[in-house]
Amino acid sequence: MKLQQVKAEPVLKNISELPIGVFDSGIGGLTVAAALHRRLPGEDIIYLGDTARVPYGTKSDQMVRRYAIECALFMLNQGVKLIVVACNTATAVALPHLRELLRVPMIGVVEPGVEAALKQTGSGRIGVIGTPSTIASGAYQSRLRELAPAADVYGQACPLLVPLTEEGRLEGAIVDMVLKDYLSGMRQKNVEALILGCTHYPLLKPAIARFMGAGVELVDSAEATAHAVEDALLREGLLRTHGRGRVKCYVTDVPRQFNRLAKLFFGEKVSAIKTKVHLQALD
Amino acid sequence: MKLQQVKAEPVLKNISELPIGVFDSGIGGLTVAAALHRRLPGEDIIYLGDTARVPYGTKSDQMVRRYAIECALFMLNQGVKLIVVACNTATAVALPHLRELLRVPMIGVVEPGVEAALKQTGSGRIGVIGTPSTIASGAYQSRLRELAPAADVYGQACPLLVPLTEEGRLEGAIVDMVLKDYLSGMRQKNVEALILGCTHYPLLKPAIARFMGAGVELVDSAEATAHAVEDALLREGLLRTHGRGRVKCYVTDVPRQFNRLAKLFFGEKVSAIKTKVHLQALD
Repeated sequence: MKLQQVKAEPVLKNISELPIGVFDSGIGGLTVAAALHRRLPGEDIIYLGDTARVPYGTKSDQMVRRYAIECALFMLNQGVKLIVVACNTATAVALPHLRELLRVPMIGVVEPGVEAALKQTGSGRIGVIGTPSTIASGAYQSRLRELAPAADVYGQACPLLVPLTEEGRLEGAIVDMVLKDYLSGMRQKNVEALILGCTHYPLLKPAIARFMGAGVELVDSAEATAHAVEDALLREGLLRTHGRGRVKCYVTDVPRQFNRLAKLFFGEKVSAIKTKVHLQALD
Repeated sequence: MKLQQVKAEPVLKNISELPIGVFDSGIGGLTVAAALHRRLPGEDIIYLGDTARVPYGTKSDQMVRRYAIECALFMLNQGVKLIVVACNTATAVALPHLRELLRVPMIGVVEPGVEAALKQTGSGRIGVIGTPSTIASGAYQSRLRELAPAADVYGQACPLLVPLTEEGRLEGAIVDMVLKDYLSGMRQKNVEALILGCTHYPLLKPAIARFMGAGVELVDSAEATAHAVEDALLREGLLRTHGRGRVKCYVTDVPRQFNRLAKLFFGEKVSAIKTKVHLQALD
């Protein structure tokens, strides 16, 4: 019997060569993937949108934690070097829990958003808007108060803004009336910075800016998060600077409006998209 | 060795004693369960709301079919005598498929809504509103044209109405402006009847009636479906008339707003609710 010679593969690839994983409850997190791709064009990015179960923002904390673990396990199977939790609800409700369970470095959207907001304000009157779950979790509010105990922090849930955005309504009388309803209190309190605590909200930036007025800085977590990822990779010596990174997009369902929405959130046509995956369910 | 005597149980219970199963993508289908409970107070009702994956109306047809099969299998395990598909999207997209797979009698909300609408109209100008999936499926429109080939049928997707209702906004300037946006075309076409093709819409009935005007009959599928269930059970000799039926409610997630929404849709406090179940996932 002749023994077959097996060529030994190196056990560990150079870790910096591995992709970055970005997951979200749906397609909105592509705003974060796009910001990351612009800032770190050498990095491969694997995106996962849990479109079969979107939205997370109206579900229970327990359910959001379970879904987030399933998404993170998918990313581990893809062999990523770092996970970005692009969903504000998942970050607010599940990130501490994920960090207890898994050793891969993880970055959420709350911390970078908070830090960017604090850089903008003098007196420390800061507003944050998000889904009902994000606001009820108090994640933004408590982190702001931790880092700036003297800050005045105001939170406001805006449940209609996600469906408005997904319908493609970014301007117009209905949008203005809904914003007035949600943001009048915020405006009266003269906030200096307003954190857009949901991946969808940056698309409403022009309308929100018009309502809040020129003096109010709108903090886009997507940009701040891309910055935080760059810092983390530099610190760990894991930045990949050569070559041209690819963005590969997985979803758990391919809904009717998928192509229109993907283009809306990513800003350009995403290639290698629409690969449907099945998440490992936790029982 | 002593043989143990086993008391023989009758293999088949009297089928009419079995409960009716009602399932929906979420909590909205409680409007159908409530109508059924009012019309058939002797019947036990098992309700299942798939709150862990709500809404269905923006997901792909393939995904909605899969979720609907999982809900129907849950009902079979509960030993129901008849299944009501209370979700308009699931009825429109998945009911024909479910009927091919399963032998238990099934009633959806489209057919009863169509029949009720046709009873109301003389000339046959009929509108139907629903989620994007329901309207895109053409289920209402094609059934109307089958039964009344001369009818003029108009469909309109109204994606914001579900989030508005779930936020508790049933009246007010925002609701009026959204209705004007969706329904102006319908009003110009002078429809005589408007089918409310989503479980949530009956809650907006006063606002819709005000906008459409007194001459337009609003067809509530919940009432029409309860009527159809009664007819089917009478025809099969399966009606349970004695005693006081119980409504038992299962959900796949218990979201933050659950109690408020359940009361809103059921009209009274539901007892034996909040029992969380895990659906058998199809791979």
